[in-house]
Amino acid sequence: MLAGYLEEGMHETPAVFDLFFRHNPFKGGYAVFAGLETALDYLENLAFSDDELAYLGGLGIFKPCFLEFLRSFRFRGTVTALREGTAVFGREPLLTVEGTMAEAQFVETALLNIVNFQTLIATKAARICHMAGDASVIEFGLRRAHGPDGGLSVARAAYIGGVRSTSNVEAGHRFGIPVKGTHAHSWIMAFPDELTAFRAYADVFPDGCILLVDTYDTLASGIPNAITVARELRAKGHELRGVRIDSGDLAWLSRESRRMFDEAGFPAVKIVASNEIDEYVIESILSEGGKVDIYGVGTRLATGMGDGGGALGGVYKLVRIGDTPKLKVTSDLAKATLPDKKRLLRAVAPDGSFLMDIMTLAGEELQAGDTVINPANPLEQKPVPVNARLEELRREVMCQGRRLIPPESLEEMANRCANQLTRLPQGCLRHINPHIYKVSVSTKLNELRIHLVQEAVKGYGKP
Amino acid sequence: MLAGYLEEGMHETPAVFDLFFRHNPFKGGYAVFAGLETALDYLENLAFSDDELAYLGGLGIFKPCFLEFLRSFRFRGTVTALREGTAVFGREPLLTVEGTMAEAQFVETALLNIVNFQTLIATKAARICHMAGDASVIEFGLRRAHGPDGGLSVARAAYIGGVRSTSNVEAGHRFGIPVKGTHAHSWIMAFPDELTAFRAYADVFPDGCILLVDTYDTLASGIPNAITVARELRAKGHELRGVRIDSGDLAWLSRESRRMFDEAGFPAVKIVASNEIDEYVIESILSEGGKVDIYGVGTRLATGMGDGGGALGGVYKLVRIGDTPKLKVTSDLAKATLPDKKRLLRAVAPDGSFLMDIMTLAGEELQAGDTVINPANPLEQKPVPVNARLEELRREVMCQGRRLIPPESLEEMANRCANQLTRLPQGCLRHINPHIYKVSVSTKLNELRIHLVQEAVKGYGKP
Repeated sequence: MLAGYLEEGMHETPAVFDLFFRHNPFKGGYAVFAGLETALDYLENLAFSDDELAYLGGLGIFKPCFLEFLRSFRFRGTVTALREGTAVFGREPLLTVEGTMAEAQFVETALLNIVNFQTLIATKAARICHMAGDASVIEFGLRRAHGPDGGLSVARAAYIGGVRSTSNVEAGHRFGIPVKGTHAHSWIMAFPDELTAFRAYADVFPDGCILLVDTYDTLASGIPNAITVARELRAKGHELRGVRIDSGDLAWLSRESRRMFDEAGFPAVKIVASNEIDEYVIESILSEGGKVDIYGVGTRLATGMGDGGGALGGVYKLVRIGDTPKLKVTSDLAKATLPDKKRLLRAVAPDGSFLMDIMTLAGEELQAGDTVINPANPLEQKPVPVNARLEELRREVMCQGRRLIPPESLEEMANRCANQLTRLPQGCLRHINPHIYKVSVSTKLNELRIHLVQEAVKGYGKP
Repeated sequence: MLAGYLEEGMHETPAVFDLFFRHNPFKGGYAVFAGLETALDYLENLAFSDDELAYLGGLGIFKPCFLEFLRSFRFRGTVTALREGTAVFGREPLLTVEGTMAEAQFVETALLNIVNFQTLIATKAARICHMAGDASVIEFGLRRAHGPDGGLSVARAAYIGGVRSTSNVEAGHRFGIPVKGTHAHSWIMAFPDELTAFRAYADVFPDGCILLVDTYDTLASGIPNAITVARELRAKGHELRGVRIDSGDLAWLSRESRRMFDEAGFPAVKIVASNEIDEYVIESILSEGGKVDIYGVGTRLATGMGDGGGALGGVYKLVRIGDTPKLKVTSDLAKATLPDKKRLLRAVAPDGSFLMDIMTLAGEELQAGDTVINPANPLEQKPVPVNARLEELRREVMCQGRRLIPPESLEEMANRCANQLTRLPQGCLRHINPHIYKVSVSTKLNELRIHLVQEAVKGYGKP
């Protein structure tokens, strides 16, 4: 396409693209935006190497003039975006790219790859952590993540969603995320018996010892042996940190393990549960009175499993070229895109709770009391609640291809996410049939959309 | 764990680990092994950088002696493995690592990360390509893949499973996979109308022109405009390559599009279909007489979506330490691991079709007629069919940390996969309730397993 735009002399035409998804992941009530810093790093460093240009030349598809164009190709555009950790909803432009047609089009795939996946995982993490409540969550999904990079993105995005640590040491190194880990079954199997294995591990890590208790039989062997080691550690002035249960009936085994440790005089020993944990499993464990202090979450977090999960269907659509607003028409009005450069506003109640989000045209002013419209159903119109404060959700984060703001810490993003979730309508946090948060458009944006659909239909099949 | 083994003086104890999965992905009748070359690259290059060692030192967990041990740490072990593209089944050791406890344990997570994902995707690709039959399949899932590396692994593994090209240009560069692509809706939207956009694209790529026809209305606008361009191209001595339909009722739209092109005198124009394609969608399109020549497959391939999908649950288990065979016991016999170093044999009928796979102990000889046992149900015993030829499925591919064989080409792996699928019992290729291919163990391996379970249970709770 880039070669085409160059040949048509359109590569420098100004263009605006919106990145958005249509449906919240997991059929849930919200998503958590993530991936911006990664995306900005990509944009700042975008360039073709000699080696890459030689490969493209060798394909025999491209003219030398196009390859020379790529040699000096950089991203020099403007990016307007939400901050990471913000609660977001279907149809909202998470990120808007303005630049030449060439640069704004070229970055589509990379931006989608980064934002789709990190937003999916941050959302899954937020759902899991919300259900876990006071229990903490460790991410250890690298074994099942989609490639090594995939595993790093998981650790980063999961932290934004509320996960406090990872077993991925490279993610610790790269992002400063606290690293946590326990031992595997192979540690136990490497010793003549379980108790010998436990003692050896406690010798090496007397102050951070978490023992895996389900290699042979959790209640008949693992917990009694762990209590023996807890006593021996205490005699030497240390305390056993915890035990991990990785199979079986986690609700029942955690209750029984808790009781056995309490009766033995070790109420502070933590119970760690793992094995295909997600928000639904945690809900089920809690509903049966399970006593889990820490959840170790792997596959289902790292791959974003769940209802309609595995991928966030984010798309990147042209909304303006030169002076002309654009939209993609389809037979389903709900699926037609929203044209032109936009503002994204959030109506906030005096107590800080979120009431609705509204998209307007860029430069358009909106006030409490103005009528706004559901873009999926134009018959549904309502006023912006009076007393609502309208907050601008996005800001320019890159101009001329350079960051306008210093990188945020993951901690700030995670704090933002936690804060935002407390301010959503409570029903948005429900996992089954959640409350549908209102995302509306201004009457002006709605009118422009309807006008453009009518214009497009008029032109069908014209020579 | 590595620090622990070092401290216990066990880091140089010889150990053997098996990498295997328990259930075929997608509840299907087979899996396609992939990822070996990537894994061998990892093992050959494994080393800690000064920067990584400084990070680990800064964690305050590890002793200086351990960090020095890591500084000179390399993988010097032996790897026995299947070749990529081989059809494999639950419980079979895809890869066996022999080495010191330290090196064999350390590589667990990386090997699982690589083999789990690539095997998942190669299997999904094989399922999709089998259903597509004579139609070809292009991979274009990078937008929804789990990170950039994830997208590269997708292109590689999909090629092994039968996908012939990718839109991922970096994968083309890295792996030599043919690159293919069309334009996006934004190309159409960037021009005043669809016909102008089609003409411009045909000007730039007169001999490789595939037009996206669903931006406004496929049959009312897209196809008529594409026919106009096909006529103009022909007048200049070129032929329109094809059209792509990316939304709507793909069975109906492809039939109607085929009819319109045929009636206009363009029977060679290819119909490309995309939009959430997988093996089930293809089956449905075919069942309604859809006329698709090429499937563009994205999200559902790149994320391995499907029944029980999104992740292959491969694990890496200690099977021998020093002279002692090991297994992990659980209350479910079917889940207990298979101990010790093994051979993996395939019983092949005189016509080349696959009859069953059998695991024996290393060095154990097996012959047609010998009794073998279902490890998930020891009551199910049967003889190896007479006249069967027993093929050794695995070989040593790495010794002392160095490759024993030159890297195979992806083409060879893809050919192997295609060949193997024709030799499976036909019911294995069915997507719903597939035939369960027999994977058995020798009586000696079965006896060892039962003996070790009994020994482990005796030791419960001993001081």
